[in-house]
Amino acid sequence: MSTVTTAMISELREKTGAGLLDVKKALDEAKGNTEEAITILRKKLGNKLDKLASRATKEGLVEAYIHVGGKVGVIVEVNCETDFVAKTDDFKAFCRDLCLQIAATSPTCVRREEVPEADVAKERDIAAASLAGKPAAAVQKIVEGKLDKYYSQVCLLEQPYVKDNTKTIKEILAERIGKLGENIVVRRFVRYQLGA
Amino acid sequence: MSTVTTAMISELREKTGAGLLDVKKALDEAKGNTEEAITILRKKLGNKLDKLASRATKEGLVEAYIHVGGKVGVIVEVNCETDFVAKTDDFKAFCRDLCLQIAATSPTCVRREEVPEADVAKERDIAAASLAGKPAAAVQKIVEGKLDKYYSQVCLLEQPYVKDNTKTIKEILAERIGKLGENIVVRRFVRYQLGA
Repeated sequence: MSTVTTAMISELREKTGAGLLDVKKALDEAKGNTEEAITILRKKLGNKLDKLASRATKEGLVEAYIHVGGKVGVIVEVNCETDFVAKTDDFKAFCRDLCLQIAATSPTCVRREEVPEADVAKERDIAAASLAGKPAAAVQKIVEGKLDKYYSQVCLLEQPYVKDNTKTIKEILAERIGKLGENIVVRRFVRYQLGA
Repeated sequence: MSTVTTAMISELREKTGAGLLDVKKALDEAKGNTEEAITILRKKLGNKLDKLASRATKEGLVEAYIHVGGKVGVIVEVNCETDFVAKTDDFKAFCRDLCLQIAATSPTCVRREEVPEADVAKERDIAAASLAGKPAAAVQKIVEGKLDKYYSQVCLLEQPYVKDNTKTIKEILAERIGKLGENIVVRRFVRYQLGA
């Protein structure tokens, strides 16, 4: 009995670019294990597969910024739905602004779901440490408040915008989505600081 | 007869921070065995070696490159010993060339030590898959050869230089180290391909 679903097939096709039949066979052979199916496909298709996989599927821009002196650099990927929007000045300006924001404020991730659980636990711990003796309900409220504050430091989307700190980056993003009429996703970024 | 290559010398210099002559002598004495050469250097230089290795490379540059159209971007950090060297045109040009190389060839890591063990095991598996029935010694040799080929695809330092494919990036790096007279280390990079 096969556990191979249509969703799995289409996901693997997207990932590898291989043909429907090849993908189905590989998944069947791997009993639904995607990693193993990829290995099977690679054994079978060899170099051909690498070429297929390099086809991109999403639109948007990759933008980078190097701070004067070359000691800090940022690269960011922002996705949208069409290349038409990706090429607008508004979209480009938004990507540039994100780079400047990241260079200036050193967030560690895009959104709060990406903060490692261990880090959250640690912050929770630190926040609670100074509250010994207070009623539990109050402690919880204060801890949540401190956690929100922490998220607004490390998560890009929750940070105050450096060019207008009455708004968060999330709000700026929402404005752009409204103006450009397409969903926009800040997918990922990296910030390099020399020697850090 | 010595089997000591320029690449080995530069690798050991990168590892230890020791001077060119010391490294060459140690490698000669160790007949090209890097581990043994390190032992020789440690015996000879003692504490000084630790200092050299840690002194090595705190300065340098962060450089980025966005390919026309904004679908591919690269950010790289290259370290050297002094800000003086980091500001030379030669060093800047090297950083730019690395960005172009990475954009063009999509390496996944800087050096072979950084390739995840699981990936190496998998490559070994795939390489061996087509060799059933051959003698074990031949299989091993062919698999090692295929692994070297794999490393020369995924490790930046082992790739052929796109602007002159008679040299590897490691050799280009060794040339720069020789010319600029300072240890230079390609510390890290990221390559973003839109939607990939």
